[in-house]
Amino acid sequence: MKRRQFFGAATAVAASGLAIPAIAQAAPKVSWRMTSAFPNSLDTLFGAAKLLSKYVSDATDGNFTIDVFAAGEIVPTAQAYDAVASGSVEAAHTAAYYYWGKDPTLQLPTTLPFGLDGRGMNAWFYYGGGNDLCNAFFNTQGIVAFPAGNTGAQMGGWFRKEINTPADFQGLKFRMGGFAGKIMQKMGVIPQSQPAAQIYEALEKGTIDAAEFVGPYDDGKLGLAKVAPYYYYPGWWEGAAALHAMFNKAKYDALPPAYQSILQSASQAVNLDMQAHYDFVNTTAIKSVVAAGAQLRAFSPEILKAGFDATNQVLAELSASNANFAKLLKSIQDFRKDYYVWMQVAELPYNSFIVQEQRAGAI
Amino acid sequence: MKRRQFFGAATAVAASGLAIPAIAQAAPKVSWRMTSAFPNSLDTLFGAAKLLSKYVSDATDGNFTIDVFAAGEIVPTAQAYDAVASGSVEAAHTAAYYYWGKDPTLQLPTTLPFGLDGRGMNAWFYYGGGNDLCNAFFNTQGIVAFPAGNTGAQMGGWFRKEINTPADFQGLKFRMGGFAGKIMQKMGVIPQSQPAAQIYEALEKGTIDAAEFVGPYDDGKLGLAKVAPYYYYPGWWEGAAALHAMFNKAKYDALPPAYQSILQSASQAVNLDMQAHYDFVNTTAIKSVVAAGAQLRAFSPEILKAGFDATNQVLAELSASNANFAKLLKSIQDFRKDYYVWMQVAELPYNSFIVQEQRAGAI
Repeated sequence: MKRRQFFGAATAVAASGLAIPAIAQAAPKVSWRMTSAFPNSLDTLFGAAKLLSKYVSDATDGNFTIDVFAAGEIVPTAQAYDAVASGSVEAAHTAAYYYWGKDPTLQLPTTLPFGLDGRGMNAWFYYGGGNDLCNAFFNTQGIVAFPAGNTGAQMGGWFRKEINTPADFQGLKFRMGGFAGKIMQKMGVIPQSQPAAQIYEALEKGTIDAAEFVGPYDDGKLGLAKVAPYYYYPGWWEGAAALHAMFNKAKYDALPPAYQSILQSASQAVNLDMQAHYDFVNTTAIKSVVAAGAQLRAFSPEILKAGFDATNQVLAELSASNANFAKLLKSIQDFRKDYYVWMQVAELPYNSFIVQEQRAGAI
Repeated sequence: MKRRQFFGAATAVAASGLAIPAIAQAAPKVSWRMTSAFPNSLDTLFGAAKLLSKYVSDATDGNFTIDVFAAGEIVPTAQAYDAVASGSVEAAHTAAYYYWGKDPTLQLPTTLPFGLDGRGMNAWFYYGGGNDLCNAFFNTQGIVAFPAGNTGAQMGGWFRKEINTPADFQGLKFRMGGFAGKIMQKMGVIPQSQPAAQIYEALEKGTIDAAEFVGPYDDGKLGLAKVAPYYYYPGWWEGAAALHAMFNKAKYDALPPAYQSILQSASQAVNLDMQAHYDFVNTTAIKSVVAAGAQLRAFSPEILKAGFDATNQVLAELSASNANFAKLLKSIQDFRKDYYVWMQVAELPYNSFIVQEQRAGAI
């Protein structure tokens, strides 16, 4: 408070005509709006935009403020990308893949089905040229974007009946994301697109047979265990879903370098923070959904293989017709090939041993 | 450059006696020194301190500078903690466990053998009360610290001969970290403590039988494949090693809130960045060390179990005699128990399937 009053005083001095243009330029008052793609009830997702806003405001002594609005308050989720591109809002916190219908290339900054896990995506974003490649595309749309959150591997969703073989997907009315739906169609699924708030009723009435959302913490709020108790894993179409902080490029470019840098470092901090948040709350939530009646089921190896084959078909089709998609895909796939060699050496054997001890009741 | 000149002009105005104390207080010139625990040849580790410094300087238009010094330039690694505590340097980038000899509690902010992986540590730090618990201890020593980097699961080290059973550790002269050495002593190891630069010669001459360092990227620079070709994994005593940015508490407390906030968010950004850096470079390095002659070997289940038992003995002994150690340990262990349940549901099955496809040559 004191600090803002002081800055107010300094601005008054500047307005009085004294020769201190420097201060105004170094820490100008900037007020932006950020539309979140999420309702504030999804506190892990919506909270990331709020944390980004807090980091930026705190770092600038309140001179650079970003007011965060929940989905639909100022812009519906489906329009957030266009709103930032046109500059009607300065910023959005959203997932690029919501806009894959505009161009399938927008699927890949969020997640590649059977692609890199969260750590792998970050290695690719920050050191494997991923951020630059993604922004080469975003820039053509008038957007600058930084990774700002990840859900980690999601769940495969809630099913009214058990799914034992790939044939069980035939004719299944499955509420799921757009790009994943395109893949699942090859497996015989009839993709559905109810808003989250309508999933419970649709499952209860049998309008749909299954629905996927995020993971136990977010899913648990929908209470689906009562109407579709078979809770499958893993959600191979979202082995890691990266969120992005998106900024109108012209407005971003006009910011002082210090503010640009703060947006970048704050986004990177938030990127870690959301994953930490999810890993903490999901740890409790997985027990809660089981207590509420969820019956955990692993997709069988045959189902995963069928999903993998269907994914590769779709990727090949899109690569053949879209050079931007093909370029991003190749970059991710090239890194994936080597990344999973290294993961087998240190990380996974370490975790496997601890999992074994957990199962034996030794930790 | 322009911006600094402007700020220089503003400072001149302030010095001339005009009534603008506000600016000086909101964005004062602060010049700190940070001693890194690492030589600049270890660019993933040393680079994290440099990145932190860059984020802070860029965010403040060069008003808050942190000059980073390599290990030994101004303070030897072993004295970095005391130097920050006393305020002879304002900051250090180091691993708390280097100072476990002062108090074993300092092992736990870095890593618990058979403890949480990197993601789990972050969930514990930021949402499981870990940072607060660690700082409750650091504060008593005059230090404020934030996680600022992680190596991920490390390798188990280079061995001149194969290690097939726990009995093969009897009398083994093994160069390794202090706390891990204390555990390994229970397995019959005779811990050694050569500086990194002397490892090659000690292995070549047979003065030591084995040596562990970090992972393939850092280890590869030492060229150990020629003198101790059996390269074991995983390094269960460092399943994730967290680095910390440490600050003298009195000097941190005297900073403007904006600068404090910038140190926190920049540290969190760096925390993610180092892991991303390691995951990228290790992916290439694991192939390079194998090409240079390293023969990858997994520690057998019996060896891991013997290590786990030895670890639990040491932890029980220390918990019985040190309340701070016991409190931190319990917090980590309580979270570990639940975290690895959740990891089994989504993350590990997802990665396991991709690993299987990698082995089959399908990715």
